[in-house]
Amino acid sequence: MSDEQPAIAFDLATPPGEDRLRRVCRTCGFIDYVNPRIVAGSVAVDPDGKVLLCRRAIDPRKGFWTIPAGYLEENETVEAGAARECMEEAGARIAIEGLLAVYSIPRISQVQMIYRARLEGGAFSAGPESLEVALFAWDEIPWREIAFPSVHWTLNYWRESAGKPLGQPFVNPPGETGDPAAR
Amino acid sequence: MSDEQPAIAFDLATPPGEDRLRRVCRTCGFIDYVNPRIVAGSVAVDPDGKVLLCRRAIDPRKGFWTIPAGYLEENETVEAGAARECMEEAGARIAIEGLLAVYSIPRISQVQMIYRARLEGGAFSAGPESLEVALFAWDEIPWREIAFPSVHWTLNYWRESAGKPLGQPFVNPPGETGDPAAR
Repeated sequence: MSDEQPAIAFDLATPPGEDRLRRVCRTCGFIDYVNPRIVAGSVAVDPDGKVLLCRRAIDPRKGFWTIPAGYLEENETVEAGAARECMEEAGARIAIEGLLAVYSIPRISQVQMIYRARLEGGAFSAGPESLEVALFAWDEIPWREIAFPSVHWTLNYWRESAGKPLGQPFVNPPGETGDPAAR
Repeated sequence: MSDEQPAIAFDLATPPGEDRLRRVCRTCGFIDYVNPRIVAGSVAVDPDGKVLLCRRAIDPRKGFWTIPAGYLEENETVEAGAARECMEEAGARIAIEGLLAVYSIPRISQVQMIYRARLEGGAFSAGPESLEVALFAWDEIPWREIAFPSVHWTLNYWRESAGKPLGQPFVNPPGETGDPAAR
């Protein structure tokens, strides 16, 4: 740590050719673009049709129940991010079936992409961001203790789609990553 | 501009409770999270079934053809971002029909969300990032001058889905923005 105040400073300015204010470094002109973030999550279901929920160990909504979900990381596909979050928060391995829902939450600049998945192997355990992890049949879901509106939507959509194929947008063709070097 | 070197400096460090390196400010501890960005785009189709393409005025792939698409901005829904980009790059108003495709491009940390849309009103014109904008029937598409692999995928998927309903994930319930204050 240093006692010096940082000499770098951002001004709000509209860069040439753009139509909105960005944070621009007063010293070097670096433009600090800020864009919405992707939350990747899953409805992970066991062979008895029970759904895996995590009780949050962190704010916001500490103590309330949610599906395993979190911010997508650099160089990660959305499906890989959803599987990683399920492992980190619930100690559970999943096989992704398809994209259940896409939500825009513009107030907090989030886009949530939620997959329907099968719980594989049956093991689960609370990760550092979870107080506990448990499986719930539909009638056991703690509706009054659900963390976020989008978790309500998701559980209802999961129920609506149960046992049916998911309507799906197209995705990357098999083996294609969009890397021109790979063509 | 200042001749001073900025005193701020980022270290690569793993914050407490995390499992990967982040850029952390040496002075104040601020964690500069970097996450994948969303590209919102559209296949905009006129009443004759022709598709709107833009010839890029900027690098990368200047001079090559693409669909209207660009980075989602803060506080914007994905659908609104796709419509804004079509207006900015092609001067065209669209009505979104549904989500055609979702691509993960992990090498460049992008998630692309492409909508199928109807061109409304018939007007279009090249914006600052386009050299020209034009409508193409399927047989007229300049396949050898397409900017990116994902534009190839998208045009083929559009052809495959033409005249059919799109398979769709669920989206925000009507009027719901995820804002707890709105509940």
